[in-house]
Formats: sequence, structure tokens, C-alpha cells
Amino acid sequence: MTEHIYKQFDADLEAIRSGVLQMGGLVESQVANAITGLKNADKALIEKVIAGDHRINLLEVEIDEACSQLIAKRQPAASDLRSVIGAMKTVTDLERIGDEAKKIAKAARRLHSGDLPYTPKVDVSHAATIAQEMLRKALDSFARSDVTLAPEIAHKDDEVDTAFEGITRQLITYMMEDPRTISNSLETLFIAKSIERIGDHAVNISEYVIYMAHGRDVRYAGTAAVEQEAAKERTRG
Amino acid sequence: MTEHIYKQFDADLEAIRSGVLQMGGLVESQVANAITGLKNADKALIEKVIAGDHRINLLEVEIDEACSQLIAKRQPAASDLRSVIGAMKTVTDLERIGDEAKKIAKAARRLHSGDLPYTPKVDVSHAATIAQEMLRKALDSFARSDVTLAPEIAHKDDEVDTAFEGITRQLITYMMEDPRTISNSLETLFIAKSIERIGDHAVNISEYVIYMAHGRDVRYAGTAAVEQEAAKERTRG
Repeated sequence: MTEHIYKQFDADLEAIRSGVLQMGGLVESQVANAITGLKNADKALIEKVIAGDHRINLLEVEIDEACSQLIAKRQPAASDLRSVIGAMKTVTDLERIGDEAKKIAKAARRLHSGDLPYTPKVDVSHAATIAQEMLRKALDSFARSDVTLAPEIAHKDDEVDTAFEGITRQLITYMMEDPRTISNSLETLFIAKSIERIGDHAVNISEYVIYMAHGRDVRYAGTAAVEQEAAKERTRG
Repeated sequence: MTEHIYKQFDADLEAIRSGVLQMGGLVESQVANAITGLKNADKALIEKVIAGDHRINLLEVEIDEACSQLIAKRQPAASDLRSVIGAMKTVTDLERIGDEAKKIAKAARRLHSGDLPYTPKVDVSHAATIAQEMLRKALDSFARSDVTLAPEIAHKDDEVDTAFEGITRQLITYMMEDPRTISNSLETLFIAKSIERIGDHAVNISEYVIYMAHGRDVRYAGTAAVEQEAAKERTRG
């Protein structure tokens, strides 16, 4: 590529990366609002999340289209191409996180639909806090092309999984003690499942960052591979 | 592109498409085996599914890599580029269907782990049959670049969602009547959730086929948009 074309590519790629981060910020708010709406029985906030999902879907389609056009116009190769493909993959996972936020909000709406205030007996806040941290770190790692955060994100995913198992066990005990709570307990269970899925998507994003920066596809390669790529960076840094 | 390069691109793309369909065939078997293993308490088959997921993950990574290389080497544009991007998106969803098959198998393993034979009280076969049909049609539609199947797949997704809601209601009734069944009922509930997710992924694949064939991204555009694209094809045919 000539220098001129190269600069155009850089500018286009930067616009896409900004778009991904903007979308990431929106998705973070959706998750935060869904969890706060659930906790505070804030019906207006819950409705805001449900209505807001549409905007995220549109952003995915827009960024996907911008990526295809960039590939067709500038014909990038090597790490430039990986950056574009990585952005496309990242927005897919961000959109799915948006879906989970919407699912949480819909469950929260059902839980808080009665006339009496509903207080969930099992608290999902701890799991939600970890998943939100994972998402924030995954977006930081995307923004700074920083692969060193990936092992920590993978580690936190184990914590979310453990928290989910704990929530499930508590809910089972609770349902057995009082079968009238089964319907609401299942809502809480699916909320916990959504939180667990948000963690999985954050892990995916952190793995795309490694692919973009180092060209190695570490998906399914185990935590050792992730550690290895992060260690390379630390040695360089 | 010169004719020579064009033929090379076609050959490479054809190899990728074959790979996607081979992966699709494997994923179909994984789903079928998971459901049969669950139904017949066939522990060997269940273990086969759990062990077989690894192969599907590797295929995703391989096909993704082949797609990146094809883009870098042949610099396709327009419908050629859409075909490659569509293949990448399709394998992501196929891999996730593979994950759901593995989750079903793991739940089946837990359900059938006791000494006494376990007979689930709520049957998920009907939902599973529809989801499997959707997957088969989505793969057919990919193989033949046939967008006319998309509305039917979308319609069947509504059926799976309805079946899932029915299963959930039945399970709640059952758990309330006999709280000792709660743990096993939750396993069945998550199996039904996996089946419902398989349907969603089949819909995604049928939407990528429209994107590849017509260049229109119908995701989140509603069933009318899907109908419209299918109708175009029928008029032409």
C-alpha cells in the first residue's frame, strides 16, 4: 500500500475502533442499568434497557458494514486485516451481551410486576459485579490492544462460574423450602445465567485482542496459551 | 481479477464452503446424539458427544484461518467478499450450536448418573425435533445459497420458543407438586434452553445466507424483511 492509502486505512480503522468502543460503552450501561433496575425495582430504568437494545443491534450492523467496506476498499493484509476481523468479531459478542442485558431487564420486569415490592431472596450482585469488571477490562484491553489483561479476565470467568453454581444451589434450597417461590426463583436463575454468559463474551473479546495483536488464535487453546501470549507482552514491555 | 486468479478464488471458496458443510454435518450429529443419548440413557453416546466438541472447535479455528488467508491473498470484493464473511459468521454459530449439544450431553450425564434409570417427566423431544429441522434447513439453505427457506426457519423458531415456554410451565407445575424433583427439573429446563438456543443460531445462519446472496443485512430487520428477500428469489425462480 502507498503511504497515502495506508493513512486512509488507518483513519478508517480508527473510526471503526471508536465505533466498537462507543458500542462497548453503551453495552456496559445497558448491563449496569439492568442490574440496578433489578435491584432497585426501578421500572423506568428497566424499560429504558429494553427499549435501548435496538440501538445496539443497529450499531452492530453499521460497524459490520463499515468493516466489509474497509476490506473491499483497502484490501488490508496481515495485522491490518486481523484488526478489521477482530472488530467484526468483537461487535458480535457485544451485541450478544446487549441481548443478555435485555433478558435481565425483561426478567426484572416480570419479577417487579406485582403490586407488592418484590425482594429477591438470592442476591446476584456479586456475580454481576465480577462480570461487569470483566467486560470493562475486555474493552480496556481492546482500546489499548493490551493482551496482558486476558489471563485476569479468564481467571475472573472462573469466579463468575463458581458464583453461578452457588446461586443455583441457593435457589434450589430455597425452592424446596417454599415451592410457591419456584416461578420467581427461575427468573432469578435465568438472570444469573445471563450474567454468566456476559462473562463468557468478555473472555471471547479478550481472546480476539490476542488474535489482533499477536496473530494467534487462542480460542479453545486453554489458559496456558493465554498466559503465554500475555507473558510475551510483559517481557517486551 | 484476472480469470486465472478468479478461478483460484472460486476453488478456495469452494473448499471453505465444503469445510463449513462438513462442520455443519458434525454439529448436526452432535445435536442428534445428545438428544438420543438423553432419551435412551445411552452413556456411551453421551460421552461421545462431550468428547466430540473439541473437533468442532478446531474446525471453527481452521475455517476462520482459511477465510482470513483467502481475503488477504485474493482480495475479494462485493459478493465474493460477502461469501467469505458469511462463512466466518456461519462457523461461529455452528460452534455455538456445538457448545449447546455438549451442554445437553453434560446435563444428560448428570440426569443419568444415578443407579436407577431416570425417566424425565417432561419430554423435550418435540422442541428438539423442530430445532433439528431448523438446523438442517439452515445448512441446506447455505449449501444451495437458497434464501427462500429463511421465512420457514423464522416461523419454526416461534414454534420452538412456544415449546420452550410450554416445557417451562410443565416443569414448574411438576416441581411444585414434588419439590424433590427440583434439581432434575432444572437440568431439563437448561436442556430445553439449549434447544431453544440452537433454533436461534439456525435463524442466524439463514440470515447470513440472505446477506451472502443479496447483500442485505436482515438481522433485527423483522420478519417482513426476511419475507421480502425470499419473495425476490421466488419471483426470479
